[in-house]
Amino acid sequence: MSSAVRSPQSISRCPVKRLDPLIRRLSLKLTPPSLEDNRSPEARLRAAVAQLLGEVPELPLPILQSLPPVLNRDWCPVVDCLFDGRWHVVAIHGESPPPPLGLAIDLGSTTVVFYLVDLSSGEVVHQRSALNPQVKYGEDILTRLHLASKKEGLERIHHLTIEFLNREILSLAEGVGYRPQDISILALAGNTTMTHFFLNLDPSMIFREPYVPLANRFDFFPAKDLALELSPLAKVYVFPNAGSYFGGDLIAGILASGMHRHPGLNFLVDVGTNAEVVLGNQDFLVACAGAAGPALEGGILTCGMRARKGAIERVRIDPESLQVNYKVIGDVPPEGLCGSGIIDLLAQMFLAGLVDQRGRLMIEKDPSRMVEIDGQRAYVVVFPEETSHGQPIYITEADIKNLIRSKGAMYTILTVVCRSVGVSFEDIENFYVAGAFGNYIDPEAAVIIGMLPDIPLSRFQPLGNAAGQGAICLLLNRQALGEIDEILKKLTYLEMNVRGEFMQLLTGALFIPHTDPNLFPSVKAKLGSRG
Amino acid sequence: MSSAVRSPQSISRCPVKRLDPLIRRLSLKLTPPSLEDNRSPEARLRAAVAQLLGEVPELPLPILQSLPPVLNRDWCPVVDCLFDGRWHVVAIHGESPPPPLGLAIDLGSTTVVFYLVDLSSGEVVHQRSALNPQVKYGEDILTRLHLASKKEGLERIHHLTIEFLNREILSLAEGVGYRPQDISILALAGNTTMTHFFLNLDPSMIFREPYVPLANRFDFFPAKDLALELSPLAKVYVFPNAGSYFGGDLIAGILASGMHRHPGLNFLVDVGTNAEVVLGNQDFLVACAGAAGPALEGGILTCGMRARKGAIERVRIDPESLQVNYKVIGDVPPEGLCGSGIIDLLAQMFLAGLVDQRGRLMIEKDPSRMVEIDGQRAYVVVFPEETSHGQPIYITEADIKNLIRSKGAMYTILTVVCRSVGVSFEDIENFYVAGAFGNYIDPEAAVIIGMLPDIPLSRFQPLGNAAGQGAICLLLNRQALGEIDEILKKLTYLEMNVRGEFMQLLTGALFIPHTDPNLFPSVKAKLGSRG
Repeated sequence: MSSAVRSPQSISRCPVKRLDPLIRRLSLKLTPPSLEDNRSPEARLRAAVAQLLGEVPELPLPILQSLPPVLNRDWCPVVDCLFDGRWHVVAIHGESPPPPLGLAIDLGSTTVVFYLVDLSSGEVVHQRSALNPQVKYGEDILTRLHLASKKEGLERIHHLTIEFLNREILSLAEGVGYRPQDISILALAGNTTMTHFFLNLDPSMIFREPYVPLANRFDFFPAKDLALELSPLAKVYVFPNAGSYFGGDLIAGILASGMHRHPGLNFLVDVGTNAEVVLGNQDFLVACAGAAGPALEGGILTCGMRARKGAIERVRIDPESLQVNYKVIGDVPPEGLCGSGIIDLLAQMFLAGLVDQRGRLMIEKDPSRMVEIDGQRAYVVVFPEETSHGQPIYITEADIKNLIRSKGAMYTILTVVCRSVGVSFEDIENFYVAGAFGNYIDPEAAVIIGMLPDIPLSRFQPLGNAAGQGAICLLLNRQALGEIDEILKKLTYLEMNVRGEFMQLLTGALFIPHTDPNLFPSVKAKLGSRG
Repeated sequence: MSSAVRSPQSISRCPVKRLDPLIRRLSLKLTPPSLEDNRSPEARLRAAVAQLLGEVPELPLPILQSLPPVLNRDWCPVVDCLFDGRWHVVAIHGESPPPPLGLAIDLGSTTVVFYLVDLSSGEVVHQRSALNPQVKYGEDILTRLHLASKKEGLERIHHLTIEFLNREILSLAEGVGYRPQDISILALAGNTTMTHFFLNLDPSMIFREPYVPLANRFDFFPAKDLALELSPLAKVYVFPNAGSYFGGDLIAGILASGMHRHPGLNFLVDVGTNAEVVLGNQDFLVACAGAAGPALEGGILTCGMRARKGAIERVRIDPESLQVNYKVIGDVPPEGLCGSGIIDLLAQMFLAGLVDQRGRLMIEKDPSRMVEIDGQRAYVVVFPEETSHGQPIYITEADIKNLIRSKGAMYTILTVVCRSVGVSFEDIENFYVAGAFGNYIDPEAAVIIGMLPDIPLSRFQPLGNAAGQGAICLLLNRQALGEIDEILKKLTYLEMNVRGEFMQLLTGALFIPHTDPNLFPSVKAKLGSRG
């Protein structure tokens, strides 16, 4: 693991119905040609594969060229076949080949996660995450988009990304004794901008009216076309985008959730830099995205930081003693607050009466921790003597207002999406919470602050890294190619900014948890019992 | 035209039923994205092509990458789509693009012929032929096969061939003001060995028992995989072989003849270095090949030479005066005899009584031309004072014996093939005579010496360069891909050497025209009228 980034939770096993991977390893038994049976080795190889796969495979030239030495040893070659709509033989092996390896990449704008998958067993044999090197051109994606709107800028970001991927893939493979050249398939999921950067495609239309990406759907292409140093015949699959604000990472997330296959209604919420939500079932999918995330992710708060070593990820405040307990990633002195810690903090402060419904600090409740910093009222979470840098870790009233706007936007997006299809939150069977950050949210805390709706907590399902899991799903089951097509067909994208309803509903959500306490009966009960 | 080689006859128009080429040039009218219609440019491009071709095309990365500047000019791009089983966009053009160009190559072991085809009009815009540079490693194919049975030898021949092709393609394209990079598709037909050399495939199994090529069928592959300098996304189609002795050139020849589509019986005879014949109709095809050619092609005769400038290609001997008249390629003093000249010569000598049924020279008939050279009896065709080198051009009795063996083998192959399906020569509707050399044969002369059967001369159809024409056919009509599959399915290969019947029948054919004069009534009549 790269030490700069919090370890992803262990991946729950991908919900593939059966193992039918994009690469099939076949052990063939051929017979040598004779005067009686003069079919060519090429024809024998195709026929043997066709017998096992039900389809005559393509045989690229390099495979034909490397056939004689393998057959001279014996007539029982081991071959790997790749499916990209049709089957191709992509490798022919000598003795003791490594397993057929696939690579899944979640190309996040901040964190990139790599999964090395043994396609014969279905196991993730190694995983690794690293900071996206593009952050050096801007933490936020708009700065990078601006740079990439010029051809040289795009080239620079593209090459930086490819070099980074090659380097990380090398470490990933070597970490378990393999070589990048043992990998024959890459499935990559990223948002629309990341996808354009990766493919060296002009992204300038993404952020200019009418906000349409250059391309949404991509065909399998040879890895060498992007100078990716995988096996010579390796191919790349890039998850399609549904639009500028709904990328392949979300499509992969839907795939991983399986919501598109189930009769019951499910919600998928991905809280990353953006908040992206999908509501639907086997018949329809309604998607929406909005800028609900920045504050929640910790990035823009005074003492906010990314979820890495030193970040406070859990907070508990004793309602009696008002004592603050916290948990730090890496068990070191804390440096700041990451997203899940911030949501915990706000929920605990609210329950303890340290903050009111409107987000105002209740100075008199615990004056020992209330300070004024640069003219701002603030609550000290950790005193200087306990922190790594000797400065206090605190949250200002302005931070809290930011947080409330973000959580209010999230709740409102969920409400609007539900209303658009005429259902209420009670109708939702599962509420999948995904995303690099969303994965670590305590749903109870998110309900308390009014970010997520007040439904039974058992319905909240953390989905881990949904984009990465979706990519793994595809590697392990080629039926997913068809499912992705289905997802795109069923998906309707709701433009949030053009709906006046959003602004109207948002007003009520700019309180903790909401102006209408009946929408949050469990919070009401908690307050009542403590109250 | 390369001056070293005889110009091919002008190509008879390829029998494509309708123009449905492997590359389609489309002029598209797209609309720019708007807030109301936010489909991506990629989706618009695919939809516009799909509307015209009935199928959503693949869009390779380089096409997506080059899309913005083209669309920025206007939203009416001109694209070229290539069909290799499915459609791919392979070029996107600015203003005044060259026409969509295809290249057909007949990769003969001696002569290579190149055709540049405008795929929008169906016209051959330029053609060119050149000596295969492999001849420097051996005039006969076995020498080259021997060299190529070692990996370094194969590499050497392969690279020599690719360099030669790139050089010739450059000359071909520049000859009419285009660039090789304007060519997006290459269809190549060659015999099995030539195909293996071209593809850098180990040919050693071709000439070792059980005489099975490494590969017979090839998928379309990118031209850049063989370092062919065509357009960046150009693809290559190589005609499949039916076996070691029946190559893609013959399959292309069948395609060009159209015999596989007709109810009536047709014969295709290709006399090159080998004699290759196919008999069949829409229901079946029986093929056979044998070493009937070397002597006929002029290569191994004392005064034989390839059909190039200085070769005698036509001979007439006045039966009364015994005066010899001849026609020389390039109208220069003669240097030797090429294949068609040799067949003419033998037929004319036979009719004039200068040679008997058994191939013995009739010394007393024209003592002025009968000489003894190195202990061999010979007939002088051209006296030293008329030749380019000041030496006589003559034919020895041993040459005549060689010729008789070759023509006898050819006739016997035709007989055995007919017998194998229970038909006689009278049942043949058309007798297509093809091949670099066969094309120039005078059928009447070939019948007189008993090489071809004695059927009405109108049934002999010269087919030109059948392999090259077949490759052009494919470029111009993608239905031919399915037809080639059909041809391979219908084709039965008759192993000639293992049939005792062949040796038995051959005996009768080692006479001029045959031991059974009733098989050649027209020759009998000619002799009767002159005798």
